[in-house]
Amino acid sequence: MSFERLNIAKMHGYSPGEQTDSGNTIKLNTNENPYPPSPEVASALSSIDVDCLRRYPVPMADSFRETASRLHQVSPGNIIPANGSDELLRLAITTFVEAGEVIAVTQPSYSLYPVLAAIQDCKLIEIPLQANWDMPADFFEQLEKSAAKMLLLVNPQAPTGGLLSTDYILQLASSFSGVIVLDEAYVDFVDPELNYDSVSLINSCENLLILRTLSKGYSLAGLRFGYGIGAESLIDPIMFKTRDSYNTDHISQQLANAALKSIEYSKEIWRRIRLDREVLRSSLNELGLVTPASQTNFLLCQVPDSIGAENLYQLLKQGNILVRHFDQDRLRDKLRITVGKESENLALITAIKEILGQL
Amino acid sequence: MSFERLNIAKMHGYSPGEQTDSGNTIKLNTNENPYPPSPEVASALSSIDVDCLRRYPVPMADSFRETASRLHQVSPGNIIPANGSDELLRLAITTFVEAGEVIAVTQPSYSLYPVLAAIQDCKLIEIPLQANWDMPADFFEQLEKSAAKMLLLVNPQAPTGGLLSTDYILQLASSFSGVIVLDEAYVDFVDPELNYDSVSLINSCENLLILRTLSKGYSLAGLRFGYGIGAESLIDPIMFKTRDSYNTDHISQQLANAALKSIEYSKEIWRRIRLDREVLRSSLNELGLVTPASQTNFLLCQVPDSIGAENLYQLLKQGNILVRHFDQDRLRDKLRITVGKESENLALITAIKEILGQL
Repeated sequence: MSFERLNIAKMHGYSPGEQTDSGNTIKLNTNENPYPPSPEVASALSSIDVDCLRRYPVPMADSFRETASRLHQVSPGNIIPANGSDELLRLAITTFVEAGEVIAVTQPSYSLYPVLAAIQDCKLIEIPLQANWDMPADFFEQLEKSAAKMLLLVNPQAPTGGLLSTDYILQLASSFSGVIVLDEAYVDFVDPELNYDSVSLINSCENLLILRTLSKGYSLAGLRFGYGIGAESLIDPIMFKTRDSYNTDHISQQLANAALKSIEYSKEIWRRIRLDREVLRSSLNELGLVTPASQTNFLLCQVPDSIGAENLYQLLKQGNILVRHFDQDRLRDKLRITVGKESENLALITAIKEILGQL
Repeated sequence: MSFERLNIAKMHGYSPGEQTDSGNTIKLNTNENPYPPSPEVASALSSIDVDCLRRYPVPMADSFRETASRLHQVSPGNIIPANGSDELLRLAITTFVEAGEVIAVTQPSYSLYPVLAAIQDCKLIEIPLQANWDMPADFFEQLEKSAAKMLLLVNPQAPTGGLLSTDYILQLASSFSGVIVLDEAYVDFVDPELNYDSVSLINSCENLLILRTLSKGYSLAGLRFGYGIGAESLIDPIMFKTRDSYNTDHISQQLANAALKSIEYSKEIWRRIRLDREVLRSSLNELGLVTPASQTNFLLCQVPDSIGAENLYQLLKQGNILVRHFDQDRLRDKLRITVGKESENLALITAIKEILGQL
């Protein structure tokens, strides 16, 4: 017997990447940060007073909002904390898109987006990226024609690694009549020389909700903490109406706050990952796995037909190296590889060489 | 400029009870547990390895599910963990009730229910309890007539404190064609001599989803951890489709697991709170604040018109004692008072005596 709504009965859930208990596995499949959280986060954890847990947490995570607002030079009212940025994606849809209305995404994109659209019983329009992963030249026109109420856009892009410029985002937000959810899960890994910063756009673009997560950049995937940045007219209905009143817990509020306050530690890690990303990319290209530039902490490489992407994924897994293969159009011949520590990246390259018979 | 859906624009959010930073305040307004979490929870907290936080948490909180399933003598597939039981309430509606369909609640009831119904754009039918807070004799008929797809029922009841029997729940679930969400937030404080246990009903009632929280009984309101118990046909669509994939974090999974494993510690606290509840109730009744029996960790007392409930709330607040006043039909002349530690309850009674001029 099923009590599910019809749209829920018909849909398929999201499949998170494989997790493993094995300490021997080199885990390059879920874009986790290979380095531990900052010493300040460790210290915040050890100063948690367990007795405080008997009380409800601060409902709006005031200290975190204050810290985040200083970091981004906005007001605390422009910040909304969440139980992971996945929660904010869901909340944005719940708040701004009716069942039956259209949500637009690019194709390919984050594979959670279609799932969230299905839960709200929304129509999903997927606008294909060009063969080189650039946005299609007529993207604005396609978007307008779709009559979408919301655009879910990840920037830097996933799983392709490319970056849209601040100017492009500004033009897009100015031309689009719906809400743009700009998912910046990987923004911490963007080369600082590109001067990418979309936050200042919230002052002129009332329809722009920027999502940040502490999962990747701050090595806190296990903590579930993300936040949104936007005009108060976008933040307020989520904050005061659709959000669960205590959506973030006491411990995660303290640790998230400590993480942002110790951003200098993380910046050093981002620098290291950017360097290792370039080394790994060169090595993959040298082995014939064509890998475009990436502004994230992962690379999307094309696997020659002679070996096959799914086959390579399986062979690496047998050698205790996990990478991500998506059984999806345009991605079946590719692997998404998280940039790990230098030693992990080397082990990966060695394993691929062995599989290719080039050792 | 507003991008909100029409139903969101029209609705009002939930108002959580006041929180305070002041260490001097006696806080009897949000049904928090006055005692700290168990030593095993403290020990689980101090053994968290901060390095583990860089990895995503176990998506389905397997260890916690295992522990909870042993405690309730069901299978792990009957357990769904959540970021507080508030999250499960929302997920149950998202999964089982279409916009425009009817959700039934009693009146009065938990003030979050109407908010969650409004977010999903559902119709809300409120079925009034009798004057003595008993269920109306024709409740089953009223429910059937309402054509409700879901009944949200808190048992022991809030804010009244009464308890429906297991037999009543069984009859209700057998007669009702929709899903019953049985919110047992306060079940830990039920007198064990009453032998109340609804969990075994899930085997015969496929439409019964029982909610538990660690906020009250286990002194973990700050942690945000709750869980559902139900037939797999109810649990699965929430678990695998509508839930955020990582809805509970690594730390809360460990602490929640430790809390259930050290239930004997909490049982002793529940016993103490039951005893103090009876003492407090007698004292309130002696002062002319008529207070019916309660199976929860709070009491709902009627304040004589000569003093007025809101007035008494304000006067207590001036004396640094917080209790809860609801500006709602049938509750305006009452106060909901959490059972605190013996000394806190005494301070409350002394303050009321003083206000009533009886000192």
